Amino acid sequence: MKNLDYILSLDQNAKIEPVKKGDFLQKEGSNSFRAFFVKKGILRSYTIDKKGKEHIFMFATEGWIIADIESQQFNQPAKLFIDCIEDADVITFDRNILEKVELSKDQLTKNLNLMSRRVAVLQRRVLMLMSASAKERYEFFLETYPELPDRVPQRMIASYLGITPEALSKMRGEIAKSK
Amino acid sequence: MKNLDYILSLDQNAKIEPVKKGDFLQKEGSNSFRAFFVKKGILRSYTIDKKGKEHIFMFATEGWIIADIESQQFNQPAKLFIDCIEDADVITFDRNILEKVELSKDQLTKNLNLMSRRVAVLQRRVLMLMSASAKERYEFFLETYPELPDRVPQRMIASYLGITPEALSKMRGEIAKSK
Repeated sequence: MKNLDYILSLDQNAKIEPVKKGDFLQKEGSNSFRAFFVKKGILRSYTIDKKGKEHIFMFATEGWIIADIESQQFNQPAKLFIDCIEDADVITFDRNILEKVELSKDQLTKNLNLMSRRVAVLQRRVLMLMSASAKERYEFFLETYPELPDRVPQRMIASYLGITPEALSKMRGEIAKSK
Repeated sequence: MKNLDYILSLDQNAKIEPVKKGDFLQKEGSNSFRAFFVKKGILRSYTIDKKGKEHIFMFATEGWIIADIESQQFNQPAKLFIDCIEDADVITFDRNILEKVELSKDQLTKNLNLMSRRVAVLQRRVLMLMSASAKERYEFFLETYPELPDRVPQRMIASYLGITPEALSKMRGEIAKSK
């Protein structure tokens, strides 16, 4: 796992630690300066609206980094909950290590690439939420996270897509029938 | 305008050029490697769905950079249209100047910051689209772009918000009444 060695090289003190399903790594209102690299397992980030409904912002599986970059950038308390939905091994690091002055130009360029890639994925996600059908969104989800459908509860996938679990179930049935 | 001098310092060949309202800087399917810095005026980026409906991804006013980062990152033809909606002065630059090897560590760090800020704004936009009411989205729009309501047609603001022009008009009426 290329990114694992990379993250470890940025922070000599970084340790891989186990996290259990159900554990929280960040809660809304807490500090938001940490980022989490997933070595194995699954984390997710989400928000809860005024009516108490969960909206999943992203999933992070093997090799992904998850963080609350909005809150970090604007120096605000965390907006997102981040929790573990499948037992995981996680490296927790201070978000600032990505731009600390000791880094080399190569490292800064790599971090710039990581961030540009995140912008790209978020651009797609915004355009999908605005203009794509639920079916197109689901197909994009399968492309982005091909390994997740069998590891994540359907209600969470529905939450990520912004549809009801019933609509997701119906759509999966139609896709299965058409194959 | 701090960012203007900064962009000019990255590319010695950069020139400020006038763009007229209605001019296209990028069309869907064309090359996507260019980025545009707005010195004055307004550009916007948008997509057109299968039914022919426009969805505005972002506006760029004085000091903003606009580009199709998704297409750039994945080396694809442009997904977004970028056009001018108020006569503008624009610096067009190759997106790659943000990470070229001649840059200093300070410049790379600054570019990393620009990109992190964009991730932050997009995180907010996704969460808003998923979980906020139309009124909350409009309030966030006013915060992000305080100078736009008087310079951009209402139908474009509605498109950015993902609501109908009628819904926007009704909401503005209610907000005006409550003040």
